[in-house]
Amino acid sequence: MKLVIAIVQDEDVRDLVDALRDKKIGATKLSSTGGFLRQGNRTVLIGVEEERVEEVMDIIGENCRKREIVATIPPMVEEASMILQSFNVKVGGATVFVVDVEQFRKL
Amino acid sequence: MKLVIAIVQDEDVRDLVDALRDKKIGATKLSSTGGFLRQGNRTVLIGVEEERVEEVMDIIGENCRKREIVATIPPMVEEASMILQSFNVKVGGATVFVVDVEQFRKL
Amino acid sequence: MKLVIAIVQDEDVRDLVDALRDKKIGATKLSSTGGFLRQGNRTVLIGVEEERVEEVMDIIGENCRKREIVATIPPMVEEASMILQSFNVKVGGATVFVVDVEQFRKL
Ligand code: NI
Ligand code: NI
Ligand code: NI
Repeated sequence: MKLVIAIVQDEDVRDLVDALRDKKIGATKLSSTGGFLRQGNRTVLIGVEEERVEEVMDIIGENCRKREIVATIPPMVEEASMILQSFNVKVGGATVFVVDVEQFRKL
Repeated sequence: MKLVIAIVQDEDVRDLVDALRDKKIGATKLSSTGGFLRQGNRTVLIGVEEERVEEVMDIIGENCRKREIVATIPPMVEEASMILQSFNVKVGGATVFVVDVEQFRKL
Repeated sequence: MKLVIAIVQDEDVRDLVDALRDKKIGATKLSSTGGFLRQGNRTVLIGVEEERVEEVMDIIGENCRKREIVATIPPMVEEASMILQSFNVKVGGATVFVVDVEQFRKL
């Protein structure tokens, strides 16, 4: 058994936990902030058999990978121009630790 | 030294921490939600010597084990019947990971 | 790679995380309460290469070590005496666990 400790963005945590649940992999979310990533992250504890660690890494990658999105903001009402302003914004990213579990129990 | 990471129900966490404290075993509670168990759980970090891991497991079992309780709700005031309604409700349950600690320090 | 899990006082956590950041060491803060230390602590997850664990321990020690401070409180307005009352107050302290990390990834 392994414990996967994933620090992910707030905005990605729901998709991650849903994707894990679809594969019957349990996860617990801890409130966390700052440091490895900018503010507003969550630490997710995921317990899995060793054979499934790669699968968990893939699921984290698919749901939390660092990526650029194009964000558009509407022009201010008082502006004559009707051109939407768009920006490239970096979102996502995950820091993942895998730790060995010596004993695992459900009580 | 071992680190016991126990995810337990909110309603059981106080009894668990009290029972550990009675045995002079320190515990730290982290706020956590969902996943292994339904909403409203807590992740408890417990540092103990290897010889005491079983004792900690027993204490977790005694305080957090999955169990059925009979919940009764009073009849609505407007109901003629004075029969209490009772339900079997499942409460408790714990998911426990034991991890090896390579170094332990109190500063 | 090692994961350093440090339970420190609320009042020390900002200095600790700043000092780690100065050394380019990432840290994630989890909200935690009670147990190892009195109420109002934080659990800090710190991922570092094995060679830097001692450096991290030193940084935790410098920022979080248990220490006595002299707290003074002003006399109540209605008191004739203008003598400040001072107390020795114990602050700080850290409980630190080091756990081996089998895999570490940034996604
Ligand atoms: Ni295993
Ligand atoms: Ni040990
Ligand atoms: Ni290593």
